[in-house]
Amino acid sequence: MSAAGWLELAHDDPFGVHNLPYCAFGQERLRGTGVRIGDRILNLAAAEERGLVDAGGAFLGQGTLNRFMSAGRPAWARVRERLTELLSAGRHRDAVEPLLLPIAQVRLGLPFEVADYVDFYSSQEHATNLGRLFRPGGEPLLPNWKHLPVGYHGRAGTVVVSGTYIPRPHGQRKAPDEAAPTFGPSQRLDIEAEVGFVVGAPSDGPVAVDDFRAHVFGAVLVNDWSARDLQAWEYQPLGPFLGKSFRTSISPWVVPLDALDAARAAGPAQEPEVLPYLRAAEHHGYDIDLEVRWNGTVVSRPPFAGLYWTPAQQLAHMTVNGAWARTGDLYASGTVSGPDPDQTGSFIERTWNGARPVRLDDGTTRAFLLDGDTVTITGTAPGPDGVRVGFGEVTGTITKPE
Amino acid sequence: MSAAGWLELAHDDPFGVHNLPYCAFGQERLRGTGVRIGDRILNLAAAEERGLVDAGGAFLGQGTLNRFMSAGRPAWARVRERLTELLSAGRHRDAVEPLLLPIAQVRLGLPFEVADYVDFYSSQEHATNLGRLFRPGGEPLLPNWKHLPVGYHGRAGTVVVSGTYIPRPHGQRKAPDEAAPTFGPSQRLDIEAEVGFVVGAPSDGPVAVDDFRAHVFGAVLVNDWSARDLQAWEYQPLGPFLGKSFRTSISPWVVPLDALDAARAAGPAQEPEVLPYLRAAEHHGYDIDLEVRWNGTVVSRPPFAGLYWTPAQQLAHMTVNGAWARTGDLYASGTVSGPDPDQTGSFIERTWNGARPVRLDDGTTRAFLLDGDTVTITGTAPGPDGVRVGFGEVTGTITKPE
Repeated sequence: MSAAGWLELAHDDPFGVHNLPYCAFGQERLRGTGVRIGDRILNLAAAEERGLVDAGGAFLGQGTLNRFMSAGRPAWARVRERLTELLSAGRHRDAVEPLLLPIAQVRLGLPFEVADYVDFYSSQEHATNLGRLFRPGGEPLLPNWKHLPVGYHGRAGTVVVSGTYIPRPHGQRKAPDEAAPTFGPSQRLDIEAEVGFVVGAPSDGPVAVDDFRAHVFGAVLVNDWSARDLQAWEYQPLGPFLGKSFRTSISPWVVPLDALDAARAAGPAQEPEVLPYLRAAEHHGYDIDLEVRWNGTVVSRPPFAGLYWTPAQQLAHMTVNGAWARTGDLYASGTVSGPDPDQTGSFIERTWNGARPVRLDDGTTRAFLLDGDTVTITGTAPGPDGVRVGFGEVTGTITKPE
Repeated sequence: MSAAGWLELAHDDPFGVHNLPYCAFGQERLRGTGVRIGDRILNLAAAEERGLVDAGGAFLGQGTLNRFMSAGRPAWARVRERLTELLSAGRHRDAVEPLLLPIAQVRLGLPFEVADYVDFYSSQEHATNLGRLFRPGGEPLLPNWKHLPVGYHGRAGTVVVSGTYIPRPHGQRKAPDEAAPTFGPSQRLDIEAEVGFVVGAPSDGPVAVDDFRAHVFGAVLVNDWSARDLQAWEYQPLGPFLGKSFRTSISPWVVPLDALDAARAAGPAQEPEVLPYLRAAEHHGYDIDLEVRWNGTVVSRPPFAGLYWTPAQQLAHMTVNGAWARTGDLYASGTVSGPDPDQTGSFIERTWNGARPVRLDDGTTRAFLLDGDTVTITGTAPGPDGVRVGFGEVTGTITKPE
């Protein structure tokens, strides 16, 4: 079968049969889960109802992917193999084509119900930059940073799908030279470009590093919107809270881990050597290229491949204390920043706290987000035969406070 | 009607008709929600099925309280009034008595599905003690503490019901005089005695301080188990993570806010004055007395009434940035500690980091928790006519690591 198959997609379509990301959608009376092929989605409930796919009923009557995600890797692999066949072999065309919906005609929803949301802090460049900006004069990288993937729990209930408007949050902020805090709309609204991993098969105890692929279903793009003024005032000693919890956006497409096989890579060397529970026999890094557009202007290209901690190490760490991982747990990488300013995944880094504003294509300049600004993060990864795997985009527009 | 009613409870039974806390239970083929009266529970699905209570079907076929909690205060008040009548007026005895189950014969479950879990840090005495212990030499209370209720998100997926065993967590720890971290079972396992508040009616934006009672359904006891060695090594700069996320225990009874009317009290005076969004017209403090037993020995009596920040201020703060509150959101007070050592809600405070071990009734001494130790936290609050309102207990026993 050709990569293009009966759908006659371009050979290098990032949403060819080598990708097959899953989604949830709603459309008038129709609501369900789907899989993307080119610029269409296959209605999975309809496919299962007609016996074209057998996911043990996991697609029937479901508005989210959670039930399918909980089925585990053997089921994911079986369904993926079958979908590949249905969307490639010409003999299935007559049965499958009526179940395809143009993406432009559906409303894409949050692809899964988020159980717990954790955000890591795994880019050494980002952690160093933020340390310099938030704790000037101190050691930017704290002593624990190279021994464990630092992370914290975020607010699962405010994770929203790409396209959802982002009301500018209110809150307390206090500049160092002010005597007391004031209250008002954030004046330092920022983004964090990240990649998130989604737990499918739950665990009732620690997940070994090399068991990562047995539990994690796939990956999404994440924009962890951040109000830096709120965050700076509130975050000691218990960490970020309202500066992050107003909204977190994710892409509507969950890219299956199986689609990212060609993107697997060794992470950076880790020195000092990590403790045994964080050592892996396999490569669990991923070579994913992100691109950040601010009102259409590309302002940054953060390289995920440079992250110090892999998603497999993050999951192993997160559960090593006996915490369960549940279907729908979302854990994000933390801001992806490379060594160069135009590789940074946040604007506080990109503009160095506003000191070096960026110029947009319309001639205006920006330090932080203005009302009406739109930020779009896209991502692609190497696929088979030199074809890219598309993550699609996570986008959001800032509105005045609600 | 007498407070004892046809059930012939003692006048001062802390679970008389003035209390009526809700629960979820399982028992062989029977699974549902209930309301406690004395040492029995009324099966609410059965009561609604038979037309004795009308909760709009919220009790039918439900294994948790979430659906009822989402119905809002008018529904809660109507149901409470009807339950009071059913359990007081003798004419209902024949219909109601067959639906009562002895508590000893049911297994109590997690009373609601936890949406997001937030833990605050609202006792000035606790924050000061922990500041001294975790940041010796520094200012114990950070500059933001009296301006906002400091808090962070915890792990919702590991909130368990009272009685669940608590496996000692593994993790990284590093003493200041050690060159590198080591890995192993926590050697400084601790408790935090807290009171948690449960959101019933959701909000799609900020909740004003004085709207607290329109959204919050009731209160539970919380033990936020804490591995101090893990926490000390990991918590900077993003806050506690694995030192807390292994398990958090809550009592099986959700005490309705309406049962706590007589316990309402002014919080402590707040100086400096707080920002307008944290100012209240009504009293939202609660006078709840906690008691902590370590293997049966009472080691502490933390006074909730002394908390600096009220649960109404906590909810207002948590949502002021536009974050939604969902049905099932649980937010806890943070450790409740009074000014005296025998009023502290954690053992790291009670034993001053192990320097002043406590002697138990069996003659042994303790600094932190040993395998096999059981901690039980109980609570009561003033009710009408001098009768106490019981919270029951949250208990847990430490087991060897899984």
